[in-house]
Amino acid sequence: MEKEKVILAYSGGLDTSVILKWLSNKGFDVIAYVANVGQNEDFAAIEKKAFATGASKVYIEDLRKELVTDYVFPAMKANTIYEGTYMLGTSLARPIIAKRQIEIAKKEGTVYVAHGATGKGNDQVRFEFGYYMNMPEVKIISPWKDPEWLSQFEGRSDMIAYAEKYGIPIKASTKKPYSEDENLIHISHEAGILENPANRCPEDVYSLTVSPKNAPDEETLLTFTFKDGIPLSVKNENDGTEVTDPLEMILYLNKVGHDNAIGRVDMVENRFIGIKSRGVYETPGCEILWKAHHNLEGITMDKEVMHLRDGLTPKYAELIYNGYWFAPEFNMLTAAFEQSQKQVTGTSKVVLYKGNVTFAGVTSPCSLYNEELGSMDKAGGYQPVDCKGFININAIRLMASSSRN
Amino acid sequence: MEKEKVILAYSGGLDTSVILKWLSNKGFDVIAYVANVGQNEDFAAIEKKAFATGASKVYIEDLRKELVTDYVFPAMKANTIYEGTYMLGTSLARPIIAKRQIEIAKKEGTVYVAHGATGKGNDQVRFEFGYYMNMPEVKIISPWKDPEWLSQFEGRSDMIAYAEKYGIPIKASTKKPYSEDENLIHISHEAGILENPANRCPEDVYSLTVSPKNAPDEETLLTFTFKDGIPLSVKNENDGTEVTDPLEMILYLNKVGHDNAIGRVDMVENRFIGIKSRGVYETPGCEILWKAHHNLEGITMDKEVMHLRDGLTPKYAELIYNGYWFAPEFNMLTAAFEQSQKQVTGTSKVVLYKGNVTFAGVTSPCSLYNEELGSMDKAGGYQPVDCKGFININAIRLMASSSRN
Amino acid sequence: MEKEKVILAYSGGLDTSVILKWLSNKGFDVIAYVANVGQNEDFAAIEKKAFATGASKVYIEDLRKELVTDYVFPAMKANTIYEGTYMLGTSLARPIIAKRQIEIAKKEGTVYVAHGATGKGNDQVRFEFGYYMNMPEVKIISPWKDPEWLSQFEGRSDMIAYAEKYGIPIKASTKKPYSEDENLIHISHEAGILENPANRCPEDVYSLTVSPKNAPDEETLLTFTFKDGIPLSVKNENDGTEVTDPLEMILYLNKVGHDNAIGRVDMVENRFIGIKSRGVYETPGCEILWKAHHNLEGITMDKEVMHLRDGLTPKYAELIYNGYWFAPEFNMLTAAFEQSQKQVTGTSKVVLYKGNVTFAGVTSPCSLYNEELGSMDKAGGYQPVDCKGFININAIRLMASSSRN
Amino acid sequence: MEKEKVILAYSGGLDTSVILKWLSNKGFDVIAYVANVGQNEDFAAIEKKAFATGASKVYIEDLRKELVTDYVFPAMKANTIYEGTYMLGTSLARPIIAKRQIEIAKKEGTVYVAHGATGKGNDQVRFEFGYYMNMPEVKIISPWKDPEWLSQFEGRSDMIAYAEKYGIPIKASTKKPYSEDENLIHISHEAGILENPANRCPEDVYSLTVSPKNAPDEETLLTFTFKDGIPLSVKNENDGTEVTDPLEMILYLNKVGHDNAIGRVDMVENRFIGIKSRGVYETPGCEILWKAHHNLEGITMDKEVMHLRDGLTPKYAELIYNGYWFAPEFNMLTAAFEQSQKQVTGTSKVVLYKGNVTFAGVTSPCSLYNEELGSMDKAGGYQPVDCKGFININAIRLMASSSRN
Repeated sequence: MEKEKVILAYSGGLDTSVILKWLSNKGFDVIAYVANVGQNEDFAAIEKKAFATGASKVYIEDLRKELVTDYVFPAMKANTIYEGTYMLGTSLARPIIAKRQIEIAKKEGTVYVAHGATGKGNDQVRFEFGYYMNMPEVKIISPWKDPEWLSQFEGRSDMIAYAEKYGIPIKASTKKPYSEDENLIHISHEAGILENPANRCPEDVYSLTVSPKNAPDEETLLTFTFKDGIPLSVKNENDGTEVTDPLEMILYLNKVGHDNAIGRVDMVENRFIGIKSRGVYETPGCEILWKAHHNLEGITMDKEVMHLRDGLTPKYAELIYNGYWFAPEFNMLTAAFEQSQKQVTGTSKVVLYKGNVTFAGVTSPCSLYNEELGSMDKAGGYQPVDCKGFININAIRLMASSSRN
Repeated sequence: MEKEKVILAYSGGLDTSVILKWLSNKGFDVIAYVANVGQNEDFAAIEKKAFATGASKVYIEDLRKELVTDYVFPAMKANTIYEGTYMLGTSLARPIIAKRQIEIAKKEGTVYVAHGATGKGNDQVRFEFGYYMNMPEVKIISPWKDPEWLSQFEGRSDMIAYAEKYGIPIKASTKKPYSEDENLIHISHEAGILENPANRCPEDVYSLTVSPKNAPDEETLLTFTFKDGIPLSVKNENDGTEVTDPLEMILYLNKVGHDNAIGRVDMVENRFIGIKSRGVYETPGCEILWKAHHNLEGITMDKEVMHLRDGLTPKYAELIYNGYWFAPEFNMLTAAFEQSQKQVTGTSKVVLYKGNVTFAGVTSPCSLYNEELGSMDKAGGYQPVDCKGFININAIRLMASSSRN
Repeated sequence: MEKEKVILAYSGGLDTSVILKWLSNKGFDVIAYVANVGQNEDFAAIEKKAFATGASKVYIEDLRKELVTDYVFPAMKANTIYEGTYMLGTSLARPIIAKRQIEIAKKEGTVYVAHGATGKGNDQVRFEFGYYMNMPEVKIISPWKDPEWLSQFEGRSDMIAYAEKYGIPIKASTKKPYSEDENLIHISHEAGILENPANRCPEDVYSLTVSPKNAPDEETLLTFTFKDGIPLSVKNENDGTEVTDPLEMILYLNKVGHDNAIGRVDMVENRFIGIKSRGVYETPGCEILWKAHHNLEGITMDKEVMHLRDGLTPKYAELIYNGYWFAPEFNMLTAAFEQSQKQVTGTSKVVLYKGNVTFAGVTSPCSLYNEELGSMDKAGGYQPVDCKGFININAIRLMASSSRN
Repeated sequence: MEKEKVILAYSGGLDTSVILKWLSNKGFDVIAYVANVGQNEDFAAIEKKAFATGASKVYIEDLRKELVTDYVFPAMKANTIYEGTYMLGTSLARPIIAKRQIEIAKKEGTVYVAHGATGKGNDQVRFEFGYYMNMPEVKIISPWKDPEWLSQFEGRSDMIAYAEKYGIPIKASTKKPYSEDENLIHISHEAGILENPANRCPEDVYSLTVSPKNAPDEETLLTFTFKDGIPLSVKNENDGTEVTDPLEMILYLNKVGHDNAIGRVDMVENRFIGIKSRGVYETPGCEILWKAHHNLEGITMDKEVMHLRDGLTPKYAELIYNGYWFAPEFNMLTAAFEQSQKQVTGTSKVVLYKGNVTFAGVTSPCSLYNEELGSMDKAGGYQPVDCKGFININAIRLMASSSRN
């Protein structure tokens, strides 16, 4: 009888290597799937290790460009930030990984997929919702919620023993005292020494940004162009570098963001499952992009559109954080946000300096800003007497309430 | 026949001095009311000038402490920020000025009040709503919306001529090429050279903060304590300074914020009346306070409370910005936010450095953070298998939707 | 010199007839524009009267079908009801009237438009916003807010005198002791004897519906079909009548609604300008349509989409009521609601009986209802144990809060 | 060794009787807890049966008055309705049952509680959240999610066999072909023949209301008085009956509602767990109460308070439906709604007639309704010219947008 194929989201680390072998030992034909979402990795080495560990086939998928255009840009359009602080770097990369995994499952003719996300975190939810929404009949193997696995592997030492038994190579590198997730949007640092929120994050935790103390003493001036909310280009006015490809743009922004100490945050956040968790994030490029975009909205977005959007953004961030990227209610909000971005078009300049991203001027052919009308020195067609009526009418109900009290 | 009394919100500047005289010339008994909300002023000189210009009586009212406890703190509890950027420094000071003005009117037995706010801005609305909500029968004289005044005073030169004619002293100081409003929360800079949003704000505009370039090379570590959302103390761990009085606390935070280049923002905002306007703000102390408070919420505020609050904050900011501080719907939201702050109690450390306010540790006797439960290494009573059920149940409707599509 | 053309929204009643003549006497070339939005009128007689009163040209525009497809249906998709009660019959007809008036102005090459709405109501706002949004350079003549007009016409008797002076025919009919607005959506009754909200509305006020007391003793069964939220047909199962044309459908529903006493409401509502107002409405057809549509959403709309929509519906109703039909924030919400209606497809049966509209069965090829899964007697693939996990995970934060208290 | 006590929510029906014996057989000391929430039951017989089945102790708790004052009234104040249709009759009774069960557990010195709610429904969630929020350390036995129980009892016949084996009396009554839950708020009908939403609900399903066809041909006029949103009295103007006690009021309203065919609804709703479910509900008294209260809000509630409330009501309904009655975010919203009800004081008359509840007049000493101001015939201090300014100012941003397009 033919073995069942299973598509395993494979990273090359200890956990997913042991899972690969364990699935293989359980009789599965394991196909390793490695998503390149911009993490700093040697993909050839991972491929080799996957085969060595028993994979029958390995997919190395470069999802980076689609991640930028189809996930990062929509989140930016909604000005999405979770709990006022976290820019959703991990959350945004999960649905695309799940979607591609299901596409491979369909291509390979199987309904089995597996992942190595822990049973306490958000990623398990994001992966599994992604699977269900792209293939409702999917069968999911998630060892860290599987009683059989959990009874066999109580901790890291059990996995190391299993790896040694089956000849799975283990990196000699000492394990970092915290857990990381990296992609082209950000790197996250959690767990280990960070688990006590009373402690400040040590400087050596950071890897995608220099400390403000080590950033240059000179400002960096960037000029962005946007069309209907989409960034078309960014130019470094200090040295003339200009980038227009979406992926290259993010990578370039990460570089200048790194150099100028942009995008560090440290917070206690609420996981979907109701557990509070301390997270340190570095999001150098997107921090710059979000701010440049938001500054341009100032002159191009209608007031009431902005206020309506701002009231819905926390919900959108929650949906993305919780793994509902493809859900019907997410699509409903996306339709609204897309509409809100029409004519968010123009240029936006920002200055980077030791952790600060500063407004340095916006222009737009679609500007709603009227210098004469806004001016305190010119009339610009404005009739001050109109405002008397405006106030008097708005005050009608206020006077009714205060007369009553 | 006795003259009608009118309570004029008086600043000592050219506009309100001319208004004072103009009201007096129209036959009013003008009582000058000067609100001390923390602006940098010589109140004795203002008093003297008011009398010299024709005031029959002068009230100099120190509203600073009440401004902090009854306006700043409630705004902070809601994490209020207008359009994601502006911390409402002017907006928060307007309702208390209006309220005290009405109290004086009642004491003086009149229903006439006057102010010098322009006919294009937000302050006229905030003052007048404040008047109506505290005295529905009020009669408001707002020269900048008054056809008679407007026909007499077309610009600054008409006012100067009027002042000279009536011997009103005019400061020789050259007028700044932009307009400012200062109080203990912030200073705003608008108009003049700032009106073109394509231009970066020149460094010499700033007055309450040094440039990040001129800030010290050493970090400043502050420790806050909060009880039910209210800050009780702040201690500078560098030098041991500790402040507990609410007003002193804000003044002290403004000082350390100034020194560390904290709280500059530059934006195009939407005025209530639908005109876009460019504003540059410096809010050194409150920027620090808002962040310290928000960090503490991370460990002490329930997830769903925070998400509900975050969705309502833009509305609250809009109400404050638009002058609805005393309105019934404002009180309704305030009741919800007050409830949300119970047990936002504990300590919050932040580090200041060249424009950055960085999380440096939080603790709380009311913490909802459970290190064991949050840990990726320890179980803390958590059953990973539960999460299988959690995901499966949440996926039921997602699978129904994707099966349909 | 050529006269300026003005497009006057003309009804043939006393007010707009006097306005027509008044504008003409002021030197305008008055073009009368009569919008047919389904009111019960003799349009030929109105046209004749317009010419007799001095119009140089008369436009009689049948807007009924577009009103149904482009205004009623979008409102229905959002389940829009103002303040939980009012189905927006007048509000929905105003933007289309304004839009067509501007189209005529453009065709006639003028920027002048005029209307006869009072200065205390909502319609003036809806008309004028509609004008501004379709022609920002419009010049609006609104006599009931015009000091010159107001000084000339203090009340109805002044208008009658003016009409007599200029030979404008006045209907001999005694004026009803209340004010009405009728179109294909509804009729409203306001003012006069209804102004005291302590009084019950007399039976003789109603004109589009019989009293429940006079409705038939037999039920009427209707079957609707919908596709993506749009009604395609309605069939009267009692007599086999079937209607598919959108306009005919509304007219037919008004007829059966009338006969079965459907759609009466009586309320005190809040006008945009902050005045409370008592309104009695009869909306026979749309009341039936709204309910049939909402019932079908029960089996075809995702839970979270419905809950998100339901939280936004009051805002949408407010925007429509306040005259913001074409505003950017309205378009933003519309995009979301359109997305929410995909696959609201199927049949919906309702029973009409003496004022009641009762659910009588729904079916859908896009149903999300799973009888096996919903059943208390069958498993339908459901694992009850999953729910243990679902509850336990959701309870984590609840337990944290209750442990703290 | 002493037996562990367990508090079982006991109804006297087959399921909880078998559970009682099963728990007893497993070695528990079973204390039966019967909550009287207004269901039509012989509590003495239930008590006797509980002892006969092995209970060591029986608590019969009359929760009816507290249910009305502490659960029904707060829900009414928020105008709470789930998915626009369901008045939450079952949802409102669950938290009080859970709360009292935990109080008994504390009194009896145990942490064990048990309930017989199914594993597919909402009640299991509501009970268990109620337990966790009132006693975080609780241990819950929920047989219908317990693998041991589920393997032993696959269906009703297994329970009957078990009952016969242990001499548990079974009612001879034929089981209804649908499932019911009754309390003083409503009765629900689900499952069985109702599971196919294509079918209309048969008339014999209804038990708390007569059919509109069988209701009297005469209207019934009721006059309510409210203070700060709380109903103080209701008087039947037809016969002079007056009731003031909260519980008696609800019972009386149920009676007149029953007679006049008020409060039937039929819908497909979304369970918390994401399954769609068909429910038929009869809520005669509360349907009347909700409408009388809402009508009074028309003259006593500020416009913006109402609009803010209406946007939050769906969230509140969702929280109640999902079992979050005691949750922190529920308390936050409750604080806002309480604030909104101040001065919802006055009288409200409604007419009942064959399923219809009709507005018949409201009065209030705290009215915000101003007849002169609202009148189309009188000025009431209103300046129509003010509205010109109101419109012009509001149109500024609309003109900016339309000029751009």
